[in-house]
Amino acid sequence: MTATITAFARSPDRGNGLARDMRLRWALEEVGQPYEVRLLSFEAMKQPAHLALQPFGQIPTYEDGDLALFESGAIVFHIAERHPGLLPDDAKARARAIAWMFAALNTVEPPVFDRALARILERDQPWYEQRLHGLEDIIRKRLDGLSRHLGDADWLDGAFSAGDLLMVTVLRRLQGSDVLGEYPNVAAYVARGEARPAYKRAFGAQLAVFTAASTR
Amino acid sequence: MTATITAFARSPDRGNGLARDMRLRWALEEVGQPYEVRLLSFEAMKQPAHLALQPFGQIPTYEDGDLALFESGAIVFHIAERHPGLLPDDAKARARAIAWMFAALNTVEPPVFDRALARILERDQPWYEQRLHGLEDIIRKRLDGLSRHLGDADWLDGAFSAGDLLMVTVLRRLQGSDVLGEYPNVAAYVARGEARPAYKRAFGAQLAVFTAASTR
Repeated sequence: MTATITAFARSPDRGNGLARDMRLRWALEEVGQPYEVRLLSFEAMKQPAHLALQPFGQIPTYEDGDLALFESGAIVFHIAERHPGLLPDDAKARARAIAWMFAALNTVEPPVFDRALARILERDQPWYEQRLHGLEDIIRKRLDGLSRHLGDADWLDGAFSAGDLLMVTVLRRLQGSDVLGEYPNVAAYVARGEARPAYKRAFGAQLAVFTAASTR
Repeated sequence: MTATITAFARSPDRGNGLARDMRLRWALEEVGQPYEVRLLSFEAMKQPAHLALQPFGQIPTYEDGDLALFESGAIVFHIAERHPGLLPDDAKARARAIAWMFAALNTVEPPVFDRALARILERDQPWYEQRLHGLEDIIRKRLDGLSRHLGDADWLDGAFSAGDLLMVTVLRRLQGSDVLGEYPNVAAYVARGEARPAYKRAFGAQLAVFTAASTR
């Protein structure tokens, strides 16, 4: 059975691949699994039918037969558990890859997402510069650790894993910023993720949704 | 072999169970596994020996033989995978419990943690009230979803799971706040978690570390 995911009918990032369905698309492309997409308006996301699938009224969701899941990290993990290619076979290496999945979402993403949100919502506030600098200082602490750990390796722990997939999607929100530019090996790591054929297919698929909606 | 975790030698929360080693202690108590604790000063956390275990210089870590892990969510998952009691046997129920683990750490924790941080770091700023209200509005959106999903159930999806364990530890940071008080079923859910014997043993163990450090 082909799984169905949900995505924004019109993504706020204009098809730049920052919406969280990108994580699922990329994971499914890495493991070679087809999928269908159900597009949702912002209004539909707040309706009972969607809230029954996603208690917080967000995207993406994942439906496969009578299994319904939410949370992009959990869905990527579900895909990675069921198909080879995103988690190592060795039990210890697998546990470490899972640690990087949580690190991406619980340690690195919060300040990176806060910065993106502040740039949209707080730009006109008198505290904006001070707040932005504060957030970037927190982000630098995270990137210090990430850069030191990564060194000149291609990926975070041996072969490419679901941990790298999530980390790259998190770091993409910093692209073009001075703060990412201060860490050339981290910027190169992001570019390495984006160069994967599976990433490119996933990016193209989500961009096509935005392009179609814009020309309709 | 007994696993070793790391924790603050002197926890900033004064033994109130908000430091993230609490999650590991609680999980290990739930599954009945003994553990040892290595206490770290803030200075020791920034040294190469610890950074090799935890790239971001944080606690907790988990060492079991030659396996070393970081990220509290990943460690709780590792414990839950290896010992019965924290994840359902049924594959679909297990996937949903994992979704709640990610929801706790990636959807609910970020604004809750931001609020706690703002209350410490931004209290004297001219924008403090406005910022606090903004954060509490985001938190209310999360608690709306959580409260609606929970209804009058004891736990998020059937039996108590690692998803509940993480969610309760996240929500405890809101205790005593007006915002949590607006959601009586969520407040009761947190109290239900704290009433578990395994929680009480874990809480007592981490409090004992703080008490011993204070009277030394």
